[in-house]
Amino acid sequence: MPPLTISDIDTQRANSGLLSTTVAGYTSSDLFKSSNSNRHAESRSLHHRLSVESRNFFGSELKKSSNQVFKTHMIPLGTGRPTSEFYPWDSVTIYKTPIRREISSACSTNNANMLPESRTIAKKGGDYDIARGLNYSHAAGLPALLRFVTEHVELVHNPPYKNWATCLSCGSTSALEVALRIFCNRGDSILTESYTYPGAVAVAHLLGVHTIGIEMDAFGLMPDSLERTLRTWDESRGPRPTVLYTIPSGQNPTGVTQSLQRKNDIYQVAEDYDLVVIEDDPYYFLCMDLGLDTVEKLNSADRDALATASGYLASLPSSLLALDISGRIVRLDSFSKILTPGLRAGWVTASDQIIDKFIAYYEVSTVAVSGPTQLMLLDLLDTTWGHLGFFSWLDQLSIQYRSRLRILLNACDQYFPKEVCKWTPPQNGMFLWTSLDLRKHPIILSRDQKEHNLSPADNPACDIEARILAKALEKGVQITMGSLFSTNQTPITKVYFRMTFAAADESEIEVGIEKVASVIREEFAIDTFYKEIREEGSS
Amino acid sequence: MPPLTISDIDTQRANSGLLSTTVAGYTSSDLFKSSNSNRHAESRSLHHRLSVESRNFFGSELKKSSNQVFKTHMIPLGTGRPTSEFYPWDSVTIYKTPIRREISSACSTNNANMLPESRTIAKKGGDYDIARGLNYSHAAGLPALLRFVTEHVELVHNPPYKNWATCLSCGSTSALEVALRIFCNRGDSILTESYTYPGAVAVAHLLGVHTIGIEMDAFGLMPDSLERTLRTWDESRGPRPTVLYTIPSGQNPTGVTQSLQRKNDIYQVAEDYDLVVIEDDPYYFLCMDLGLDTVEKLNSADRDALATASGYLASLPSSLLALDISGRIVRLDSFSKILTPGLRAGWVTASDQIIDKFIAYYEVSTVAVSGPTQLMLLDLLDTTWGHLGFFSWLDQLSIQYRSRLRILLNACDQYFPKEVCKWTPPQNGMFLWTSLDLRKHPIILSRDQKEHNLSPADNPACDIEARILAKALEKGVQITMGSLFSTNQTPITKVYFRMTFAAADESEIEVGIEKVASVIREEFAIDTFYKEIREEGSS
Repeated sequence: MPPLTISDIDTQRANSGLLSTTVAGYTSSDLFKSSNSNRHAESRSLHHRLSVESRNFFGSELKKSSNQVFKTHMIPLGTGRPTSEFYPWDSVTIYKTPIRREISSACSTNNANMLPESRTIAKKGGDYDIARGLNYSHAAGLPALLRFVTEHVELVHNPPYKNWATCLSCGSTSALEVALRIFCNRGDSILTESYTYPGAVAVAHLLGVHTIGIEMDAFGLMPDSLERTLRTWDESRGPRPTVLYTIPSGQNPTGVTQSLQRKNDIYQVAEDYDLVVIEDDPYYFLCMDLGLDTVEKLNSADRDALATASGYLASLPSSLLALDISGRIVRLDSFSKILTPGLRAGWVTASDQIIDKFIAYYEVSTVAVSGPTQLMLLDLLDTTWGHLGFFSWLDQLSIQYRSRLRILLNACDQYFPKEVCKWTPPQNGMFLWTSLDLRKHPIILSRDQKEHNLSPADNPACDIEARILAKALEKGVQITMGSLFSTNQTPITKVYFRMTFAAADESEIEVGIEKVASVIREEFAIDTFYKEIREEGSS
Repeated sequence: MPPLTISDIDTQRANSGLLSTTVAGYTSSDLFKSSNSNRHAESRSLHHRLSVESRNFFGSELKKSSNQVFKTHMIPLGTGRPTSEFYPWDSVTIYKTPIRREISSACSTNNANMLPESRTIAKKGGDYDIARGLNYSHAAGLPALLRFVTEHVELVHNPPYKNWATCLSCGSTSALEVALRIFCNRGDSILTESYTYPGAVAVAHLLGVHTIGIEMDAFGLMPDSLERTLRTWDESRGPRPTVLYTIPSGQNPTGVTQSLQRKNDIYQVAEDYDLVVIEDDPYYFLCMDLGLDTVEKLNSADRDALATASGYLASLPSSLLALDISGRIVRLDSFSKILTPGLRAGWVTASDQIIDKFIAYYEVSTVAVSGPTQLMLLDLLDTTWGHLGFFSWLDQLSIQYRSRLRILLNACDQYFPKEVCKWTPPQNGMFLWTSLDLRKHPIILSRDQKEHNLSPADNPACDIEARILAKALEKGVQITMGSLFSTNQTPITKVYFRMTFAAADESEIEVGIEKVASVIREEFAIDTFYKEIREEGSS
């Protein structure tokens, strides 16, 4: 049975479960998967990996009592779900941005005539409306939105085990908090990249969970280092870690993307040590491979293949989820970086055992993703774009961001002093990670030019980092200091900065980099002290 | 210094802190309070009441690093907050419901000309726009929305201590989860009403926290019973409870509202035993006092006074927060029952020490309330309605719900067999709590008509409750069984049902009740067996 493709979606929907039409109607991704996953084996149980807190928790009795699906209308005298008669809003009309037009032509084969400038969501009617969309919703999502997301997951990742499942999350930061509560007890340690998303470190700190940074190279987290950390774990530090948290694409903050070989090797270590792997992948769809834009120089057939949405889909790399035969990957996706962050929405994919835990946690906390958010997503993704349109959007967005990345890289090339600055263009995401070679800083050079034998107690890195940050702000540019991302001791030979091309106006990027460069040149005395040293050295 | 009134708001705003205009700009309710609270003393510290988890947690370093407020524009090369240029939405237009018209006339003195049929939120401009509203937001809320909510809290509750603070929550269920994590460790017990919101019991169960139900009467939770439970606490059950969770208005499920005397007495016990009190008050604004509608028979001056928004405001009872001189009340408010549940938004008021903890928790989980939700709230509450319009909405909504309550009560009066059914009209909220006298059930009567000496092992209540629920569903009516709300053992002399007049179409309420009544009559054999018994008894 071949994997699900976009052209199968209509048939797939005709054969899939009905959309519940009641308020907060029961739904499950199981209703919307193709039978394709039935040919795979079930996942292994992760029961032994559940925390004390999550192990015996199955959600809200009240919610479950209202999960019953009725064939006929019931007079609702039971649940406290106010009638839509008393909502203060009658309808919402959403206008789309101009970028939509390119998408319209990209997916012109199937729904160009469904792409109006605006769309109105009415009080009642259709697969979604204000009456249900602004009432309580099932924690997994509005049925039609969960259907779209389930299909999307199957199209992109096609997880190779039977009982995978998907639910919405209130954004990946929220999903990460829930994931750590599901899998960790106080005193546990989790494995992360040595520089990582500070939100992960913060929530681990909240939960009394230690973060153990694993070394990285140009292909991401190093499996050897991961394996060694596990093999040589000293139990006096607490139980050996059972959870790996990794950002595989356009890693935050380093911008590094794991190669397929690297993903396979990491997965093998996870299998050997029975790890749960939290695959936090918000930058997966933002493809920054500048080589792709050379298609402009290709012949038209090749160009068309790469420029269409299905070409984009085919070009996406394998995720860890796509390699996961055991059901040990908990994949977090987010709308934040690909639509807008304020939606506070994303989706989680894992075995049904784990997704049921996510739903249970959400039932007693956030209850569901915001209704206005879900309505905007449904309207955009399902009704307006469809799957092809969504991939086309992601393709177009990647192209636009690549153009900004190129501006950033050109500016770095032009202004940054290469004697001390190093950076590598990212393959994904929105960050450029820049290192400054501290051994070439005047303070260090003047102290001990030959041996660079700094002791940790004598570490000037923090001062230098803070000074550069402050001077950049004085000049009107905000950059993010690398130490904020460190899980281990601050290194004493490097200072790092994270920069992004995603937030500023395009016209500001070059002047911003020029100012940062001038701060670095000044801090490192590139044009005076360091130049003299160099001249002395070469003389 | 007199308390803040609606007419002071313009001056108050002129004197209050500026609204940050940057993405996810720093904000705090401290910027928006009047100087009125300065005349009060500071709250007592609740540090000794913080859980192991929350005590040393202060939120996200990353968020705090971007809390800095700049006077001039900064080129944002640091934070990963995508530019609004790449949002797929250009604007959102929201149409209001007809009920708005009454509000328009109610607050016609100050902003009738600000009440258009619809309003468009543009990409950029004004106090709020899509560019910032759909980007990351400060965990406390968008500045202009937090300002409105802070003013609202001061207008309604005017907390009598200096350092009270407010932040948005992702709904009260979410706020309750966070509150219990802030104050409870595994193995702790919290005090609740003997019948309470199942979501509270579920989240306590998740956290390994026991719920101890306190007896209630017609005025709500009984202070004597509360005090006795604390005084006679057996430490072998774990530490003596330090948290009381209470729903003071239109209690879920009983519909009972605490009198002012009752609130004072409960607060005194809280002071004596140094309790933290979680005041979960989603039904506070839904005033179901049917006596109020006799104003229709009053002279026109009295009627006008009660029918205007400021009359409504004056008629609101004192909350526990309004009595709180020590800062031990954590008040949870929600938009769910007064606007729509799908917003997933509410607000929390407590001492700044506790609000800082809420913000810290939200920073590493949900990050912020959904942007579309916040934009809809801002547009409706602040721009369109203003404070007077909001109170007018709440007044109008209460009037409409009272009309539905009257339909429900009339139907109960007409159809329910009074031999076995008892109910009391609620003073607030949306629930009617009905008890069935099990001692009059044929099974019991036939067993032991005189003494009713049932042993718990012999308890038929669950069967009877389940049978009534199932039969009602067969007839097309959904009601909620009382045992779902019980914190203690199921009683053996009563069966309870919770019914609401808020969810069904108004025209369905009577027929729904008629059907439920017929199920009860059948179950209790009112028209056959029980009638015979009665006749025998009276003969």
